[in-house]
Amino acid sequence: MTERVEALIGRPGDAVIGIIGGTGEQGRGLALRWARSGSRVLVGSREESRAQAVASSLGRGVTGVSNDEAARSADVVVLAVPWEAHASTLRDLQGSLVGGLLIDCVNPLDFDKQGPVARTVEEGSAMQQAASLLPDVTVVGAFHHVSAALLLDETVESIDCDVMVVGDDLSAVELTIALANRVPGLRGYYAGRLRNGGQVEALTANLIAINRRYRTRAGVRITGV
Amino acid sequence: MTERVEALIGRPGDAVIGIIGGTGEQGRGLALRWARSGSRVLVGSREESRAQAVASSLGRGVTGVSNDEAARSADVVVLAVPWEAHASTLRDLQGSLVGGLLIDCVNPLDFDKQGPVARTVEEGSAMQQAASLLPDVTVVGAFHHVSAALLLDETVESIDCDVMVVGDDLSAVELTIALANRVPGLRGYYAGRLRNGGQVEALTANLIAINRRYRTRAGVRITGV
Repeated sequence: MTERVEALIGRPGDAVIGIIGGTGEQGRGLALRWARSGSRVLVGSREESRAQAVASSLGRGVTGVSNDEAARSADVVVLAVPWEAHASTLRDLQGSLVGGLLIDCVNPLDFDKQGPVARTVEEGSAMQQAASLLPDVTVVGAFHHVSAALLLDETVESIDCDVMVVGDDLSAVELTIALANRVPGLRGYYAGRLRNGGQVEALTANLIAINRRYRTRAGVRITGV
Repeated sequence: MTERVEALIGRPGDAVIGIIGGTGEQGRGLALRWARSGSRVLVGSREESRAQAVASSLGRGVTGVSNDEAARSADVVVLAVPWEAHASTLRDLQGSLVGGLLIDCVNPLDFDKQGPVARTVEEGSAMQQAASLLPDVTVVGAFHHVSAALLLDETVESIDCDVMVVGDDLSAVELTIALANRVPGLRGYYAGRLRNGGQVEALTANLIAINRRYRTRAGVRITGV
């Protein structure tokens, strides 16, 4: 991975971005924003026809493909499936992801009558589960806190949110930061190693609690940087 | 607790604030800021003489007392001890805290050669441990992300950070928000129930990683509120 990623850090607009689970809200939203900023985006789905329908609704050269094709053809693969499908999707795509860079956006959350709650993940976090399942893939975590509703709202020009990028491979982190920075409003920051990824994922439960209490679409900014 | 807390929500400046572990950096910093905003502050320590020394260095009417005295005499008790002393301090003060409001600021963190890392807490978080040890005390979590260095820097007029207030008792949360709002720059927000407190505490590890990477004193702001 390293050579290709290193080369793309300086020209992130050339990175072909494949989104696994690209028909979900978060995946569609990210696809839309990157496509708007001029990136080549492949939206993946288990059902290629659904991916094609979403891609044509997004326009801007977005292509709908199978998850496997998105994993194989992209420079950077973004994982945006529901938590319930996290492990099984990664196991299915293992062969196609080898040697690549995976950006895990998955929030392991549950909801009950008291609202959102962070789930306990045996490996510590979704991103650590990904790293554990895919030892030959470079995994970073990012984009957990960016509101899908804002991403998908075409009237929102700039999204008021920072992206905490968590990972152990600094080149992969740098490229992810560069990709975050391509979306107007978003700013990417290194926010620690994978072992500190669980709380970044889980914080999404707090943002949802904030959304419910204040009837908003909350995000986070890092101050002092 | 409820009646007294309810009454103070509308006039948080009247709340006497007791800080357990008030001689540590976070405790001193919060004491300084609340005293600057006109609050009556009791700084507690296991050794009363140390508390008195810190209090006289802070001035502004801050009083140094034993932790037990701070717990007994304050309207609101802020817990700012190191994680290692969390459970034992609460066990020691159990009798003095009964019926009161405890704001837990403790971050269960560890440090090794790779930097900061969030600790696993059996109860899920420090604040849940407090709630479990003290069933007759109302516990909220807050002030985890506010840089002690900024709090203590008298040249910093306004602190660029939001305070995620986590708790199950809405009156206690409201009063904590009102106390946060008394410190120039800080803004308090409800950020979910106690069961979602672990990630708020643990996120401090990410902020420390950000501090190290970007040589800053990072904080967080909630956007969209």
